[in-house]
Amino acid sequence: MASALARRARGSAAVLWGAARGFASVGSDIVSVAPGVSLQKARSWDEGVATKFSTTPLKDIFYGKKVVIFGLPGAYTGVCSQAHVPSYKNNIDKLKAKGIDSVICVAVNDPYVLNGWAEKLQAKDAIEFYGDFDGSFHKSLDLEIDLSAALLGRRSHSRVGSKCYRRLGVTRQQSLAPIF
Amino acid sequence: MASALARRARGSAAVLWGAARGFASVGSDIVSVAPGVSLQKARSWDEGVATKFSTTPLKDIFYGKKVVIFGLPGAYTGVCSQAHVPSYKNNIDKLKAKGIDSVICVAVNDPYVLNGWAEKLQAKDAIEFYGDFDGSFHKSLDLEIDLSAALLGRRSHSRVGSKCYRRLGVTRQQSLAPIF
Repeated sequence: MASALARRARGSAAVLWGAARGFASVGSDIVSVAPGVSLQKARSWDEGVATKFSTTPLKDIFYGKKVVIFGLPGAYTGVCSQAHVPSYKNNIDKLKAKGIDSVICVAVNDPYVLNGWAEKLQAKDAIEFYGDFDGSFHKSLDLEIDLSAALLGRRSHSRVGSKCYRRLGVTRQQSLAPIF
Repeated sequence: MASALARRARGSAAVLWGAARGFASVGSDIVSVAPGVSLQKARSWDEGVATKFSTTPLKDIFYGKKVVIFGLPGAYTGVCSQAHVPSYKNNIDKLKAKGIDSVICVAVNDPYVLNGWAEKLQAKDAIEFYGDFDGSFHKSLDLEIDLSAALLGRRSHSRVGSKCYRRLGVTRQQSLAPIF
């Protein structure tokens, strides 16, 4: 599904890595593919109130920047906590050395939940977390999947990446290697 | 809206306190009002996998028991973290002394997020947390509200309780006093 994101998002400024698959789709223009869509920067409830529950337009996140973005099924899910986020966090210096401006994690969660999880993982210094509480970002990119069987509801389709790993016979950690 | 819950849920076994309003609606039968609805016990992702993502039928939670249930707009929201959950946690001995079998917190969150939050609040020993990830429990009881303006989406309508507090000129803490 990360490939669907790449396929639909050709065009301009942002560097886009497929969900958790670990290969680049350079030059993808996520802004034009999802016009009018915003994300919600992860923050505490009090910060949310102080910022009047503001959202962040995609252009403010991506325009003119080289961005690595990865999607996850959700805060507090297993592999996301134990492998996905730590993979990017632990490789942040290598990514920055490649000219990446920012590494962004997005999930269909509200920004307060996502903030609580990011703080628990001690990952906020390395990674920017954005919520997509109503799934509008993922819907725009055909990256939504129904994970109700796992008690999650409609979420980010990054699980397809996991299936790809298995088909390729590599681990998630190994799959990041081609970036560097 | 807690009153709506009470109004629609007359009948039998469970003792039902209106969301966060702090007064009892004794004898309400929540099981017959929401037939076929299940909740999801808060647990870690690994526990979710181990239990095959099982859900808990309402009758297993309420039938034949005296239960205090309160709903919240969501894990990691402000007043819920700072006041609602601590109010019940700190008064658990008084509630048990009144013959209450269990105190239950329910929110439109998945069970893994709810578990993470409950652990952070150190409230799991006193309170049982249940997720309603798809909102079906709250829909059945007309207790759903759109909180998209606060970047939350459709959630539990316990906020109406907060509005009642203000109209009554009492704080949330004071509002719990009539229980004891």
